[in-house]
Amino acid sequence: MTADVRLIGLDWGTSSLRAYLYDADGTVVASRRQAWGIRQLPEGGFTAALQAITSEWPACRVVAAGMVGSRQGWLEVPYVDLPADATSIAHGMSRVDACGSHELWIAPGLRRNAPADVMRGEETQIIGALALQPLYQANTRFVLPGTHSKWATVVDGRIIAFDTVMTGEMYALLIKHSILGAGLPTEPAHVFDEKAFVRGVHTAKDSGGEGVFSRLFSTRALMLAGELTAVAVPDFLSGLLIGEEFRIARLRDDGAIAPLCLIGEPSLCRRYTLAAQQFGYATPAIIDDASAQGLWQLASAAGLLTEAKLHTYSGVTP
Amino acid sequence: MTADVRLIGLDWGTSSLRAYLYDADGTVVASRRQAWGIRQLPEGGFTAALQAITSEWPACRVVAAGMVGSRQGWLEVPYVDLPADATSIAHGMSRVDACGSHELWIAPGLRRNAPADVMRGEETQIIGALALQPLYQANTRFVLPGTHSKWATVVDGRIIAFDTVMTGEMYALLIKHSILGAGLPTEPAHVFDEKAFVRGVHTAKDSGGEGVFSRLFSTRALMLAGELTAVAVPDFLSGLLIGEEFRIARLRDDGAIAPLCLIGEPSLCRRYTLAAQQFGYATPAIIDDASAQGLWQLASAAGLLTEAKLHTYSGVTP
Repeated sequence: MTADVRLIGLDWGTSSLRAYLYDADGTVVASRRQAWGIRQLPEGGFTAALQAITSEWPACRVVAAGMVGSRQGWLEVPYVDLPADATSIAHGMSRVDACGSHELWIAPGLRRNAPADVMRGEETQIIGALALQPLYQANTRFVLPGTHSKWATVVDGRIIAFDTVMTGEMYALLIKHSILGAGLPTEPAHVFDEKAFVRGVHTAKDSGGEGVFSRLFSTRALMLAGELTAVAVPDFLSGLLIGEEFRIARLRDDGAIAPLCLIGEPSLCRRYTLAAQQFGYATPAIIDDASAQGLWQLASAAGLLTEAKLHTYSGVTP
Repeated sequence: MTADVRLIGLDWGTSSLRAYLYDADGTVVASRRQAWGIRQLPEGGFTAALQAITSEWPACRVVAAGMVGSRQGWLEVPYVDLPADATSIAHGMSRVDACGSHELWIAPGLRRNAPADVMRGEETQIIGALALQPLYQANTRFVLPGTHSKWATVVDGRIIAFDTVMTGEMYALLIKHSILGAGLPTEPAHVFDEKAFVRGVHTAKDSGGEGVFSRLFSTRALMLAGELTAVAVPDFLSGLLIGEEFRIARLRDDGAIAPLCLIGEPSLCRRYTLAAQQFGYATPAIIDDASAQGLWQLASAAGLLTEAKLHTYSGVTP
């Protein structure tokens, strides 16, 4: 089966690289994934990774987003300021000159001033989500859980604010390297301990204006007191840290509360849904992944599609 | 020069062991220090460490405090509940049976319920400080900076409340293992960057009810934006975390504010003094170390001195 294809999109982060091949209408006709994040490139570096992940695909224009545009990436693309939308992000794209047969454009990340904050890649997911669900353009709070969780507010189709919370990284550090992880079973429990998680969420909630920094050690104290089993510690701690994100979010709510939309992998979104419920939020909408859609939208806003040559691709599996 | 000696005191923590030899009046006539914390004991374990650190000292009674009484220690001594003073702590001591020629007593730690918290060793320092400065008995907030900082409130000579904040451990984790420490000079700056530290303290203070969890990533963002040099990151982060301790403390102040007393090593106390000033506290009193005095007080309160045999020790250096 063949298709006319117009674009290749790359979601290129710290730990993985995903590639999408789009037909003339923006439908993904093929996709690939490799562990070639910018910190673990194959021999030959960025160019080799691009060639390999697009091998046997036509030489379409390529649009990339994520850490590939950071100081440690292929080309440092300057951040775009808030408020931002597909158009302003698209205008901030930079072209990489020496990339073999491909015409490669890298999207910028977003920057917030005072206090300083940055994102790279998540803005593309949000742009994708807004295209998938135009209803979200009015007023939505997007939550992208992960190593560095992002909370972004969209009003009238523009990203007007965002925050980064180092939840996933902090969780891993505390479990692997801190006293809180000492004496835990080396094999992680594969069953999610919802009760321990919710207890952690409530501990964060009940901390009021103090926050979890003064509550982290209680994980250890509860274990010593026999009030928390060692096997329940990881999910309690997960609840504590995710609960802290919601405690902070709640402080910022004023008047009408914007609906939440989660963008992330299902098991993580389940935790955030549970936490949202403990804080009295309506059950959030969930989008598994919107980066493919976001890359297409950015290419479109940049005018890269209208003048893009169509290629024939015959590897489409029906 | 000889002295009549009555007691040996051991401050036995996770990473070090200190021993004190006291005369009949509680004056320390000799002291020794080894890196034999409970996690790094010499061959032969606890008994060998005790024999070696007291070698050539008379076989006085021994009182020990700190992690030596924890589950990972020589003997797990049950926690004593709040409120606590020298008498209640002394009553909670346990005797170790098989310790060679010495009669060894280990002091308990303190426990707080709801939310759970524990300390081992710091209570002895506080008891020592209260004996060194009886004025502090009325109403003082003791701050013991460290891996796990302790904030303890003393009213009418009793410890009525305390909290643990994992400041030192968190700092080390973030610098060594997180994205915030990536790209920093491998050789730490030996000059304290007071300006960066105070900036971090104010970032914590200005976070209001949100706290530093949502501000940690700003360390990275400021560095990327060129607003914070890599070499200033460690002291900024130190200010952020120590500032968080004071932000939380401030939330608990009601009406008359108890004077602060710091117990810890001078360079760390300097940081806490600076942070206290940013939060409008009067300059704290500083006690470098009070564990020797605390051990003596506990032995006294336990009645271990009145019936203790005096030994002659001739190794006193004038």
